[in-house]
Amino acid sequence: MNAEFELIERIKNGIKVPAGITGIGDDCAIIPQQQGLDTLVTADLLVEGRHFLLEDANPEDLGWKSAAVNISDIAAMGGRPLAAFLSIALPSHLTGKWADRFAAGFKEACSAYGVSLLGGDTSASDDKVFINVTLLGQCPHGKALKRSGAVPGDIIFVSGPLGDSAAGLKLILEGKGAESPVLTSRHYRPEPRVELGQLLAATPGIHAMMDISDGVAADLPHILEESRCGASVDTTKIPVSQELKAICKSHGWPPLTLALDGGEDYQLLFTAAPGTPLPQGCTAIGTIEAEPGLRWLGTDRSFQGFKHF
Amino acid sequence: MNAEFELIERIKNGIKVPAGITGIGDDCAIIPQQQGLDTLVTADLLVEGRHFLLEDANPEDLGWKSAAVNISDIAAMGGRPLAAFLSIALPSHLTGKWADRFAAGFKEACSAYGVSLLGGDTSASDDKVFINVTLLGQCPHGKALKRSGAVPGDIIFVSGPLGDSAAGLKLILEGKGAESPVLTSRHYRPEPRVELGQLLAATPGIHAMMDISDGVAADLPHILEESRCGASVDTTKIPVSQELKAICKSHGWPPLTLALDGGEDYQLLFTAAPGTPLPQGCTAIGTIEAEPGLRWLGTDRSFQGFKHF
Repeated sequence: MNAEFELIERIKNGIKVPAGITGIGDDCAIIPQQQGLDTLVTADLLVEGRHFLLEDANPEDLGWKSAAVNISDIAAMGGRPLAAFLSIALPSHLTGKWADRFAAGFKEACSAYGVSLLGGDTSASDDKVFINVTLLGQCPHGKALKRSGAVPGDIIFVSGPLGDSAAGLKLILEGKGAESPVLTSRHYRPEPRVELGQLLAATPGIHAMMDISDGVAADLPHILEESRCGASVDTTKIPVSQELKAICKSHGWPPLTLALDGGEDYQLLFTAAPGTPLPQGCTAIGTIEAEPGLRWLGTDRSFQGFKHF
Repeated sequence: MNAEFELIERIKNGIKVPAGITGIGDDCAIIPQQQGLDTLVTADLLVEGRHFLLEDANPEDLGWKSAAVNISDIAAMGGRPLAAFLSIALPSHLTGKWADRFAAGFKEACSAYGVSLLGGDTSASDDKVFINVTLLGQCPHGKALKRSGAVPGDIIFVSGPLGDSAAGLKLILEGKGAESPVLTSRHYRPEPRVELGQLLAATPGIHAMMDISDGVAADLPHILEESRCGASVDTTKIPVSQELKAICKSHGWPPLTLALDGGEDYQLLFTAAPGTPLPQGCTAIGTIEAEPGLRWLGTDRSFQGFKHF
């Protein structure tokens, strides 16, 4: 057995595939279709040194996160996540125990959200780790919540506190992760809002939705662009956690910068007609307006969000 | 506009998406489902230095091949390819014209086989190029041709000449690509057997099928393993092209080694009940037998196929 097949065996180990579905082992996976549903597909590429640092992340967390960020894209349209396809290129010293641990974290996240790992690919890599995950989900036909549905007068909501992941990352990069296991865990183990996403997609009056991966300041403009409108955000309304407040206080960090410029919170950002009944934990942070542009109220600075390049 | 969005714009340029489908630009692509069909999904990872050499392949060819090898996996189950998701990590000096040329070749292959590019991801890379393509296709429910259906007594067929791609690669690696544009083109621009695959899937008596990506010697054992049987292959029956014969003669290369150990021909390898009517160009090369193992007839050596690691 060569190293590639051995790696596939490590990844396959313990996978359960639902009845009627064909997973790893043939040229393709096979998933029966059902009239009245739409298939949702998303892909995310995670590159060592760009999206994660090998020395800072344990392999289980990296596996969890690789699955979770894609599951979050399905949640962001109100879909139910179903199937994952994992492609991973590893330098030879990581194809053993490291790969087992990565696969364990990946499968833990899949299992937590009802996702089956149905395929992918493996390769050697000279140096860096490259991970691509493609996630398939489904939702009732025509009911996916897109970025393009916002209309002037809509209230802008976020589904939970922002900035925790960015603060966790800041602690990790400064070698102070031990100061707040809560915040570092928010960074390493994001919990996509799958149930809430489906609930919102079934709620009349929700017009546009996405998940917050690059920070509100970078993500809200996507909704504004696709919906051809503008917005005002009241920065005094941005929800932040007690943990974030405490760590910002002790280090003199500005919570608002972490909350709006920091990415990877994987909360939902959505717009709703005034008066739409919403579950607890959703916080109004602004309004959609006809006038183009994004206006920050209650502050004299502006925000950019997380930049990848 | 930052470099990541610029790269996405370069890749998106000129894409047409069929009515009813949502492509690049939201959290997920959206594809309506149709009762009575199965979705087929496959993913392939192409790593610079492992699957291709940047200095030897022009970007258009690499783009074509990245799409084609995945389209071939859909063909290998008898499916119709539909949608591609391209994730690509590029060092900064390749994000301009090189990316345009890569995307042009990728989209040319997609267009040739009726595939829409609906999503993916982009990232910077410090050094090497990493490409992952996920391909979705569909076929009538339950009609995908798997590797597991072969039964003793079946005749083993290949859909066309073997070894051309391996000979093309050998020429390229020895700096002699100009000696045979036909063979190098077979390596750089494989043509997946999409129509034939669908025809075979609709033909009663075809029991198992896959595409030849690692060479018959490496690929046939997958059918034998999944079908729990053995086979004899008559090496005097292996079809090879005139071009391969000529180049082997002039260089003293053994054609059979290139044909059986060499990968990336992307012809179909399938088994059929005796007497099954088949289109022209399909050649019988052996028989499925109850006795486990793979026996090479008409030669005193054995074959291994292409090894990735």
